[in-house]
Amino acid sequence: MSAATARTAILLIHCADQQGLVAAICDFIARNQGNIVYLDQHVDTHRGVFFMRIEWELARFRIAAEAIGEVFGEAIGHRYKMHWTLSFSDDVPRIAIMVSRLPHCLYDLLSRWQSGEWRVDIPLLISNHEDLRDVAERFGLPFHVFPITPESKARQEEKLLELLREQRIDLIVLARYMQILGPRLIADYPDKIINIHHSFLPAFPGARPYHSAHARGVKIIGATSHYATVELDAGPIIAQDVAHITHRDPVEELIRKGRDLEKLVLARAVWAHIQRKILCYDNRTVIFD
Amino acid sequence: MSAATARTAILLIHCADQQGLVAAICDFIARNQGNIVYLDQHVDTHRGVFFMRIEWELARFRIAAEAIGEVFGEAIGHRYKMHWTLSFSDDVPRIAIMVSRLPHCLYDLLSRWQSGEWRVDIPLLISNHEDLRDVAERFGLPFHVFPITPESKARQEEKLLELLREQRIDLIVLARYMQILGPRLIADYPDKIINIHHSFLPAFPGARPYHSAHARGVKIIGATSHYATVELDAGPIIAQDVAHITHRDPVEELIRKGRDLEKLVLARAVWAHIQRKILCYDNRTVIFD
Amino acid sequence: MSAATARTAILLIHCADQQGLVAAICDFIARNQGNIVYLDQHVDTHRGVFFMRIEWELARFRIAAEAIGEVFGEAIGHRYKMHWTLSFSDDVPRIAIMVSRLPHCLYDLLSRWQSGEWRVDIPLLISNHEDLRDVAERFGLPFHVFPITPESKARQEEKLLELLREQRIDLIVLARYMQILGPRLIADYPDKIINIHHSFLPAFPGARPYHSAHARGVKIIGATSHYATVELDAGPIIAQDVAHITHRDPVEELIRKGRDLEKLVLARAVWAHIQRKILCYDNRTVIFD
Amino acid sequence: MSAATARTAILLIHCADQQGLVAAICDFIARNQGNIVYLDQHVDTHRGVFFMRIEWELARFRIAAEAIGEVFGEAIGHRYKMHWTLSFSDDVPRIAIMVSRLPHCLYDLLSRWQSGEWRVDIPLLISNHEDLRDVAERFGLPFHVFPITPESKARQEEKLLELLREQRIDLIVLARYMQILGPRLIADYPDKIINIHHSFLPAFPGARPYHSAHARGVKIIGATSHYATVELDAGPIIAQDVAHITHRDPVEELIRKGRDLEKLVLARAVWAHIQRKILCYDNRTVIFD
Repeated sequence: MSAATARTAILLIHCADQQGLVAAICDFIARNQGNIVYLDQHVDTHRGVFFMRIEWELARFRIAAEAIGEVFGEAIGHRYKMHWTLSFSDDVPRIAIMVSRLPHCLYDLLSRWQSGEWRVDIPLLISNHEDLRDVAERFGLPFHVFPITPESKARQEEKLLELLREQRIDLIVLARYMQILGPRLIADYPDKIINIHHSFLPAFPGARPYHSAHARGVKIIGATSHYATVELDAGPIIAQDVAHITHRDPVEELIRKGRDLEKLVLARAVWAHIQRKILCYDNRTVIFD
Repeated sequence: MSAATARTAILLIHCADQQGLVAAICDFIARNQGNIVYLDQHVDTHRGVFFMRIEWELARFRIAAEAIGEVFGEAIGHRYKMHWTLSFSDDVPRIAIMVSRLPHCLYDLLSRWQSGEWRVDIPLLISNHEDLRDVAERFGLPFHVFPITPESKARQEEKLLELLREQRIDLIVLARYMQILGPRLIADYPDKIINIHHSFLPAFPGARPYHSAHARGVKIIGATSHYATVELDAGPIIAQDVAHITHRDPVEELIRKGRDLEKLVLARAVWAHIQRKILCYDNRTVIFD
Repeated sequence: MSAATARTAILLIHCADQQGLVAAICDFIARNQGNIVYLDQHVDTHRGVFFMRIEWELARFRIAAEAIGEVFGEAIGHRYKMHWTLSFSDDVPRIAIMVSRLPHCLYDLLSRWQSGEWRVDIPLLISNHEDLRDVAERFGLPFHVFPITPESKARQEEKLLELLREQRIDLIVLARYMQILGPRLIADYPDKIINIHHSFLPAFPGARPYHSAHARGVKIIGATSHYATVELDAGPIIAQDVAHITHRDPVEELIRKGRDLEKLVLARAVWAHIQRKILCYDNRTVIFD
Repeated sequence: MSAATARTAILLIHCADQQGLVAAICDFIARNQGNIVYLDQHVDTHRGVFFMRIEWELARFRIAAEAIGEVFGEAIGHRYKMHWTLSFSDDVPRIAIMVSRLPHCLYDLLSRWQSGEWRVDIPLLISNHEDLRDVAERFGLPFHVFPITPESKARQEEKLLELLREQRIDLIVLARYMQILGPRLIADYPDKIINIHHSFLPAFPGARPYHSAHARGVKIIGATSHYATVELDAGPIIAQDVAHITHRDPVEELIRKGRDLEKLVLARAVWAHIQRKILCYDNRTVIFD
C-alpha cells in the first residue's frame, strides 16, 4: 500500500455523503486498469461529509495522466458534486520557509531536505531579520530579508507576495516566524501556510506561551502545527504533541524542551502536507494515515 | 461512521490481493441498499494480502440478515477466494476471565462490564487459586477454581474445556493468569484467547519481567496484550504501551506502575476484539481504527 | 530509598531559601541517629523559596515520635522560619469520595483501595444523585446523598461539612462530582480536595470540554487533576496526561478514551497526596518523585 | 536551582551508603560560603550505594577552584571512601562524532552545537566512509575517514586513538556509526562513548532491528542511547523512547519514524552527559534531573 515506487495518481475528494460513493470511485479506477495502492476514507456523520484519499499506479492505467482530471470529472466528480484535487507522486512541492531569529526548526527542515528524507524543493528562505543568514549560506540558499515596521508592513508584504508568485511557491512554512501575516497573503495561500505554535492550543495562544505555561503551573507543555488563518493561532490543527515537565523546570527549561517538540510537530505537519494526506473543512483537518 | 445505533452487519475479510476487490464489495452492499457506516482496508503489499472491515446498516438492506452470509459468498466471497467472518452489531460476546492471584486487571474488566462501558456477557470467572473469590462474589459471579498441579493439569484442562463449551464462551481473557495453557485449549480457541504480558515484548518474555527489566537498567517498562499461541509470549501482538521509569524506581515501583499499564493494554485489546476490529494472519494483527 | 518497611517520619518543609538549610536539617536527623531513607529538595530560585521532603526511620531515632515536632521546631524550624508538616508512615488517611453519575473513576479508586494497592480508609461515599448507590453497596460502603438545588445548596453543604468532620476526613476526592463546591467547604479543606477535570487545563475549563475539544478540532485530549479552589478549574495542578485522537473520533469516542485518562490522572494525584509528596505554594505544586 | 549563570563547581559522588553523608557534604560547602544551586541524591538501598550530584556557586567560596579537589578529599572524600569527579560549569567538553552513511543524527547534533543550544566543542568528524563529507564541509569541520576492513581494523583503530588523544577528546558520540569498536578504544574511554541503537533494548539488539520489529509484528518501536561496552548493545542505558506504529507501517515507515526517535534519544543522552548529570555503576545509570 505504501512502498509504491511506480508513478501514481492521488485524488483527494470531499463531498456530501451519499450511497455508492466508494463503489463508484473504486469502480472507475478498476475499470481503467488502475492498481489501487492506497485507499482511505472517512465520513463525518454529524456533518454528512464524505472524505477520501485514493492513490493508484499509472503504469497500465488506460487514461493518460493529463486527461485523468477531465475524465474523472465527467464520469464521477460532477455527478456527485465533489470537490477534488488531483496530484501525482512525482510532483515536487516548492516550499518557502519563513523565519525570524530562532534556528532550531529551520535547521531541522533543511536537514530533512538536504539528506533526501523529503522530496521537495526549497528555493529560498525569507526573514524579517538578518540573524539567520549564516544558516541560509551554510545550505547555499538565497536569503531574502523583509524588515517589518508598522508603516512598511503592507508594502513589504506586497513585495513578498510577488516573490512567492515568481518562485511558484506551493507551500509556505512559518518556522517560528514571529510576525502576523496580513490577510492578503493568507487569502492567496489557503491551507498552504503551515505555522508552528509553541503551546498545546487552544491553551496559551499568542505571545510567550512558555511563560504563561510556567505561570499557570501546568505539568505538560506542547506544540501545535496548524494552517494559518486570519484569526491568530485559530486555524485548522494538523498535529500536536506534548512533553511532561515538573516543578523543577524553570521557564528556560520549558523553552529548551519545547524546541524539540516544535521541530517534530512542524515536521509532521509538513510531511503530511507534502504526502497530500490532509483535507481541510470547517476549520478542522482530516489527516489520512 | 461510528455512532451507528441502528443494527449493522460487519464483515471482516482477507484474501489474496486482486484488482477490483473494494469496488466489488462496496458495489454488493450499495446495490442492495446497505448504507456503509464503516469501511477500512489494508493491503500488505509485501505478502500480497488484502484485508477489509466493512459495516453497514441493515434497516433498508434488501437481503435478510440470516441470508447475508450465503448470498455474499455466492456473489463475491467464493469468486475471490476470500476468508470472511460475518457478525452483527447486536451480537453480545460471552467472555470467560481467567485469573490467579492479582486483582487489578480483573477489577478493571469487571468495572467496564458492570458500568455498561462494554456490551458483553461475563458469565463466569475461572482461577487456579481461591484468592479472588471475594471479587467474584462482590460482582455476583460464579467463581470456578481449577487447581493445577503437574499431575492434574491435563485432566483439569479437560474439565475447563467442557465448562467453556457449556457456557458457549466466545472469548477467553487471561487477566494475569499465571499458568501456561495446554495446546488443546489453545487449538480450540484460535485467536480467541487474549493474554496480558507485563513487558514490552519481545523483551523480557517468561517469568518475572519487571525483575529482569530492573536488572538490565532499562528506562522504560511496558505491557503487551496478544493472542495466546502454543509458543509462550510469542502470539500475535494486539496492543502495547510503555511508561518511563528512572533510577529511583526499585522493582516494587516498576510493579506498581506496571499495573496501570497492564490494565489499559489488556482493556484496549479486549475492546478491539469485541468491536470486531482485529484480523490475524502470519502471527501478526491488523487492528482497524 | 523507597522500600522502607520500618516506621518512618516524614517532614514536608518550605521556607525562604537560605544558606545551610539542607545541612542543618540533615545534621539534625543524623545527630539523633535517624537513618534517612528519602531526601528530595527543590529551590524555586525565581521566588526564593526552598522545599524539602525528608523521611527517616524511627527505629533507632533518639527522639520519641510524639516529641519530634516540638524538638524539630525548637532546634531548626523556628530559627529558619519554616512551614512544616510532620507525618508518619503508618498514618492512614481517611478519604471521602464524592460522585455524581459517572462510575469509572469511582470503580478505579475503590479497586485500588480494596485490592490493598493503597493503604487508606474510605469510610463513605457522597453524591448528589442516587445513581451509584449500587456501586457503594457492592463495596459495602455507606452512601450519603445530598441532592442539590439552588435553594438547598447552602444548607446541604452545611450538613455535608458536619458529616465530613464527624468522619474525621483528611482528603476529599471529587471523582467526577459535577457540582461546584461552596467557598466554605473549600476553605475548610485547603489543599485537601482533589478534583479531576476532563481536559488539559487551562484549555477547555468548565462544562463539556470534550465537546469543545471536538469542535476545535484538536489532535490531543487530556485530563487534569488539581486541588479545588474557589475559582473553578483554576487550582494548583497535580497531574496531567493526554491521549492522541484523530479526525475519525467523534465526540463519543473522545468521551470513551477520556475515561481512561481521567481514571489514571486522578489516581496519580491521590497517590502522590497520600504518599505526602505534594507541597503547594502560589497556586502551583511541588511533586516529589 | 538551574539558571545559575555564575561559575559553579559540580561534584558527582558515589560511595557505600553511610549515615551522615548528605549532612557532611552540605556542611562542607555551607561552611566555606558556597551557595548550593543544585542538589540531588539517590540511594540504591538494594546495593547499599549512595549517589549525589551537588553544584554550588564559586563567587564567594572560600576555597580556590584549583584546590577544591584536594581539600574536599582530605575533609570528606577519603574519610567516606568516596569516588568523586569534580568539574566546573565553564569546562567545555570536546566531542568527536563518528558516523557511517546516515546523516540524520549528525545533522541534529551539529545543529544543536552551531545554534548555541549546547556549549561544546566539536573539533572533528570521523567516519569509515566518504558519504557524509559534504555535511562536514557544510559545517566547516575536518572529516577524517578510517576505512575499516577485517585486516585493517586493528591498525586503523590505533590511528584513530592517536587522533582522539591528540585532539583531547572528552566524549565520543556514535551517531549511527555502523562499526563495532575494538576493546582497546572502549577501555580508553570508559563511560565516555555514547551510542544510539535503533530499538528499545534489550529487544532487537544487533543488526537490522526495524526489520526484526516488523517481522515480530510489534506495535511500538524504540530507540536506546547507552554507553558503549565490549558487549554489543549491552552497555548502561542512558535514555529510551518509543513511538506507536500500526499494521499499516511497512518496514520503510518504521525506519522513517525511527529516525526522529534516534535523533531525540541520542541528543537527550549527550545533553545529560555534558551537564554532568550521569553516574554509572553496575552496568546501569543514575541520571539526575
